[in-house]
Amino acid sequence: MSDKGNLLYAQSGGVTAVINASAGAVIEAARRQKRRIGTVFAAKNGILGALREELYDLGGEDLKQIRALAHTPGGAFGSCRYKLPKIEADRAPYERLIEVFRAHDIRWFLYNGGGDSADTALKLSQIGAELDYPLTCVAVPKTIDNDLPVTDCSPGFGSAAKYTAVSVLEASLDVASMASTSTKVFVYEAMGRHAGWLAAAAGLAARKPGDAPQVILLPELPFDQDRFLAKVKATVESVGWCTVVVSEGVRTADGKFLAEAGGRDAFGHAQLGGAAPALARLVTAQLGSKHHWAVSDYLQRSARHVASATDLAQAQAVGTAAVEYALAGRNAVLPAIRRLSDDPYRWDIVPAPLEQVANREKMMPRSFISKDGFGITAAARRYLAPLIAGEAATVWRDGLPVVADLKLGLTRKRLPAWGG
Amino acid sequence: MSDKGNLLYAQSGGVTAVINASAGAVIEAARRQKRRIGTVFAAKNGILGALREELYDLGGEDLKQIRALAHTPGGAFGSCRYKLPKIEADRAPYERLIEVFRAHDIRWFLYNGGGDSADTALKLSQIGAELDYPLTCVAVPKTIDNDLPVTDCSPGFGSAAKYTAVSVLEASLDVASMASTSTKVFVYEAMGRHAGWLAAAAGLAARKPGDAPQVILLPELPFDQDRFLAKVKATVESVGWCTVVVSEGVRTADGKFLAEAGGRDAFGHAQLGGAAPALARLVTAQLGSKHHWAVSDYLQRSARHVASATDLAQAQAVGTAAVEYALAGRNAVLPAIRRLSDDPYRWDIVPAPLEQVANREKMMPRSFISKDGFGITAAARRYLAPLIAGEAATVWRDGLPVVADLKLGLTRKRLPAWGG
Repeated sequence: MSDKGNLLYAQSGGVTAVINASAGAVIEAARRQKRRIGTVFAAKNGILGALREELYDLGGEDLKQIRALAHTPGGAFGSCRYKLPKIEADRAPYERLIEVFRAHDIRWFLYNGGGDSADTALKLSQIGAELDYPLTCVAVPKTIDNDLPVTDCSPGFGSAAKYTAVSVLEASLDVASMASTSTKVFVYEAMGRHAGWLAAAAGLAARKPGDAPQVILLPELPFDQDRFLAKVKATVESVGWCTVVVSEGVRTADGKFLAEAGGRDAFGHAQLGGAAPALARLVTAQLGSKHHWAVSDYLQRSARHVASATDLAQAQAVGTAAVEYALAGRNAVLPAIRRLSDDPYRWDIVPAPLEQVANREKMMPRSFISKDGFGITAAARRYLAPLIAGEAATVWRDGLPVVADLKLGLTRKRLPAWGG
Repeated sequence: MSDKGNLLYAQSGGVTAVINASAGAVIEAARRQKRRIGTVFAAKNGILGALREELYDLGGEDLKQIRALAHTPGGAFGSCRYKLPKIEADRAPYERLIEVFRAHDIRWFLYNGGGDSADTALKLSQIGAELDYPLTCVAVPKTIDNDLPVTDCSPGFGSAAKYTAVSVLEASLDVASMASTSTKVFVYEAMGRHAGWLAAAAGLAARKPGDAPQVILLPELPFDQDRFLAKVKATVESVGWCTVVVSEGVRTADGKFLAEAGGRDAFGHAQLGGAAPALARLVTAQLGSKHHWAVSDYLQRSARHVASATDLAQAQAVGTAAVEYALAGRNAVLPAIRRLSDDPYRWDIVPAPLEQVANREKMMPRSFISKDGFGITAAARRYLAPLIAGEAATVWRDGLPVVADLKLGLTRKRLPAWGG
């Protein structure tokens, strides 16, 4: 078999403000390897596109538009929430994937996602070896939840963290202005199913004691209604108002989410939302304070206009490194961000084995949470501060962000339709 | 009485991303008039501070911090939701205000707010004349709702409109990425109690047919559940997903808000919120599509980091003009923005009598709403587009916006406490 082949890139799970920046870096790095890489494909809607043989041939895309991916939020090729079955339960989809890869001479598979995607990449690397197909699988990290292990932080998190801290800072100035005759308690809900990293990042908005957010509720600690109300009451009395940041994943001691939206996603995760209105109503009912609440939902993970320059650089660096690892035949690894120092912040990229990444979650350490459980510590600030540093450039036209305009032409299918 | 006196500035009602920019312009313009203006005061928490004789003496504030007001959201001096009684019902607060003004030799009162504040400024100008106190009252326009009459647009609106269009554009790219296996309908709730200007501004995100937002619900038209669901269903079928923008003030034909949060504010207005989750649940229940929803609440009116340069310039221009009008003795007027042309956008400032502004609301004209009621027309785009144009500079430090740091020293009281 020749040394030359094709490369497939795909996006998975919830998208981020900078996942397309990783995509752009992958594509640019791959294009520089003309001797080794023939065609760069992107799967339509993640692994589903690979199963369905729906592959975008990126050869005809203008370099200008590929570069515009660096300032395009969302997932340019479509993402998916689709978990492959356990390989012991059903080998068919894995074998189908290898069949598609073989049909299109795909030797390198780069899967840009979180823990589930790392698991998929790991399994594919194993079955490729079993079937004697020369495949190198590299996972490209991404998650606004920052809950991937091994890597010091995850691309996508820094920008969502910056959005969160900026929004909480700005909205709290609003609350402070209105508190004398109107809103006294403002509740902001951050994403974060199990880990409280995003809610914690709001703590960066506070520069001195008493600054907002005065209360942060993290899923790492059980919600205690009495202590929460006492803290809010004391804050309103001393400061005049109170900003609460709540992670969507916060639960009571008996394991109930503050507000379950009902329903579960394809991964079997509960679909959350509405912790902020639930808490806001509680505050008004128990303390009588007028409330306002915000649930920014997708805004927090797609707000490329306020992305972190650090995050953008890391998203691009993992994309570039992934191509390098792939071509070097480093199978079943992920380019991890390694922190070399806090201040000045220095980092590099190192390969991490997927076994250490797949299906594990990294929670906030207790040392990052203040003793009373309602704030973050100096250690947390040291960790978080560099991740929101710098403002990634946005391209504007007519007052709106300019985003990549790709042709997205599908390559001709060579196999029968997938029935899986 | 001497030609020289003091000037009082105050902020009222919901704050905006640029109300402090008006404040900064007022203060700078007033400082340039050393021959006429002795001390520039700002009332703490709007008219309440004037009643309570809580007046910040701005003489000691550094020019650098006054200039930083141009990039500081919220209301730097505190705002209030407090409506004075009808003058026929109770003259006492009006007479108290004149007493406070007399005690501090305040000859010029600049009230930065919406329709209610224009009404207060108008009444004060009348009672000043009745009591033979030489007072000139000028209202400085401000509202994210854009519902003030006479002025072509209101400072604060352009930035909230830009936030709305940018957020809906970005979040819709996210929805598009996820739709194949996850969220198919995204509902974004915009502020706007009676007028749909902000929700309409989201329509600027759509550049071609089929672009998000595919459905905009305005309070100017009654909500029709069947037509709404049919439109969402058709959009999901043709586009694959659907973004809905709903104004908080949308009501059914029988006058009910989609979701009343319950309670009324000091002005007797219903406290709204939660139209987005209500609609999202409706969509899932009736169409089965997975939904996400966002309520940005205070974020949309405090997001100075994504403010419109046009809006900022207008907020500063009305502040500067207000001082000019005040010193010229133009009583009971408001600096209104007059549109001279759409493209290129040209505007100037002209004085408008407060009688024409107070207690009136400007709704979206029917000609700005598409025939089917779910979108905006070319005429609306021509009106809205220039208002979000340009990106107002933000000052950043450590990844966060820098805001003004004022001393806010209160001047010594000279009167007995107000018992009102």
